[in-house]
Amino acid sequence: MSVYTTVDTAQLEQFLKRYELGKARDFAPIAAGITNSNYRLETDSGHYVLTLYEHHSDDELDYMLGLQQYLANQSIHCSAPVTDRRGDFYSSLNRRPTAIIHRLPGTVQSRPDSAHCSMIGSELARFHLAGREYPGVRPNPRGIDWLIVVRDMLDANLSYEDQQLIANTLQDYRNADWDVLPSGAIHADLFHDNVLFVEHGLGGIVDFDYACYDSFVFDIAVLINDWCSDAECQLDLTRVSAVLDAYQQQRQLSDIEAKALPLMLRITALRFWLSRLYDQTFPLSGEITFVKCPDEYRQMLILRSAQIERLGELILPHHMG
Amino acid sequence: MSVYTTVDTAQLEQFLKRYELGKARDFAPIAAGITNSNYRLETDSGHYVLTLYEHHSDDELDYMLGLQQYLANQSIHCSAPVTDRRGDFYSSLNRRPTAIIHRLPGTVQSRPDSAHCSMIGSELARFHLAGREYPGVRPNPRGIDWLIVVRDMLDANLSYEDQQLIANTLQDYRNADWDVLPSGAIHADLFHDNVLFVEHGLGGIVDFDYACYDSFVFDIAVLINDWCSDAECQLDLTRVSAVLDAYQQQRQLSDIEAKALPLMLRITALRFWLSRLYDQTFPLSGEITFVKCPDEYRQMLILRSAQIERLGELILPHHMG
Repeated sequence: MSVYTTVDTAQLEQFLKRYELGKARDFAPIAAGITNSNYRLETDSGHYVLTLYEHHSDDELDYMLGLQQYLANQSIHCSAPVTDRRGDFYSSLNRRPTAIIHRLPGTVQSRPDSAHCSMIGSELARFHLAGREYPGVRPNPRGIDWLIVVRDMLDANLSYEDQQLIANTLQDYRNADWDVLPSGAIHADLFHDNVLFVEHGLGGIVDFDYACYDSFVFDIAVLINDWCSDAECQLDLTRVSAVLDAYQQQRQLSDIEAKALPLMLRITALRFWLSRLYDQTFPLSGEITFVKCPDEYRQMLILRSAQIERLGELILPHHMG
Repeated sequence: MSVYTTVDTAQLEQFLKRYELGKARDFAPIAAGITNSNYRLETDSGHYVLTLYEHHSDDELDYMLGLQQYLANQSIHCSAPVTDRRGDFYSSLNRRPTAIIHRLPGTVQSRPDSAHCSMIGSELARFHLAGREYPGVRPNPRGIDWLIVVRDMLDANLSYEDQQLIANTLQDYRNADWDVLPSGAIHADLFHDNVLFVEHGLGGIVDFDYACYDSFVFDIAVLINDWCSDAECQLDLTRVSAVLDAYQQQRQLSDIEAKALPLMLRITALRFWLSRLYDQTFPLSGEITFVKCPDEYRQMLILRSAQIERLGELILPHHMG
């Protein structure tokens, strides 16, 4: 669901006075992004994205933009904010908190292959290691507390089978050791369209809107479900191995994480199924809406749930041996 | 932790043009409140509080202010926002989202007795019934996902005994049927200083900063821990009965809720212990800080945990028979 805040040239010129980026040379809205208003910005000094945040509090922006800066300082390939003359990451433009972000090179890979999976697996492990001591506090805005609210809101619109599917998933989550999983700063929304690639490598990771403190396997599971599923939502084990092998060359998964991963594939499938279903069931009127189809993630949850027994062995045979 | 945004007379006059409240007659900062900037406001048309929100996103404000209006329309005694000429609950003042709230009559009872407990118990049940169909989505910002983040942040500063106390509480929470508890809009911070009393009755409930969707017993447990504890943090059973009897005259607790209540007394004690401990451990520099002592809530958690076996029988003998 998108509101789009319009920025005219005079407003932009005024806003740029807060920065040491010279004058604007080019400025145009970007259609991508469904929660913020984004503009492509060229100035005398380089390539940027101007982002007006439509849904975040200042506390959340401090967390997100602070994390991007923190990771970028440790050579993680990710978008990072430009600090203004006062040292701030954002300030008000058209009544919206607004940041200027360094624009990364590269393009989205619409069909990532094993080589791409390997590159992002490795970078995600470096992200997790680099962010481990980041001091910000932001619980997962799409964690268990959110899942339960939205499940209750949707309950009357769900079939009995779907209600059971969700109840069983939440029950298994409850029985697992979720509160002892290694945790730290995670991206939490690492779909392939949030990663840019250049010719022979990674451009970087963008869109930290859902970045938060949660278990590392949550992040890995989001990535695998999106990057490693075939057209029928079955896991492509070659790509899964590419992700996990590359990840573990940087950061070895503990046994408890390996054991939790099959469950996390279900939990994260549920998370995106419910958020899409919510957006479809309760569309915001009067706004441009980009509703993604929820069925894909329902199907994933059904498949991953049917494979409970074997999934761990399939994706992490060495840990399960 | 408080930032205080200053508003001068010229800014106020400009802001009041958005409303149909006439001219300001009196305007002065209020020291109470540790997360927002509040001003007492008298105009030609009545008594108000002007609140500048320092930490909330627009989505959160839509939830909170919308809920207050929704409840007030159903005769719940609570603070409610004034709508401006455009029909909005808030707009920007000094770069902060700002609302004008109807000021309720009455004063805080620093030592609530059984009569006060009875009045708030009854009103809370009416609140829960009235808000049940409120369509807003806001997960508990101090729910389980938050507890785990903050536990992890504080871990290095905790004694072994405290680590175990927290781990056992979370473990028992996990083993309980928390996702099937009757839920709806709750206040989530119903301390006695958030309720005003007039001579022979309730003035109303204020401070909806933490209002969210969660289980009704969470709300009841917050209330009991604060309103019904003696100086040693032991429960005063007379006041507990006053709350629960009055509540149940309006809304009968289900058996599952009665069974969950002893555990919720521990969970909510943990919630306030950890939030206060966090504020004490990581004070924000350069800001006026009102840090409440965490020890009281640690002591409550210890006592309630030691009484696990008997607590249900003590506070809800009829349900446990």
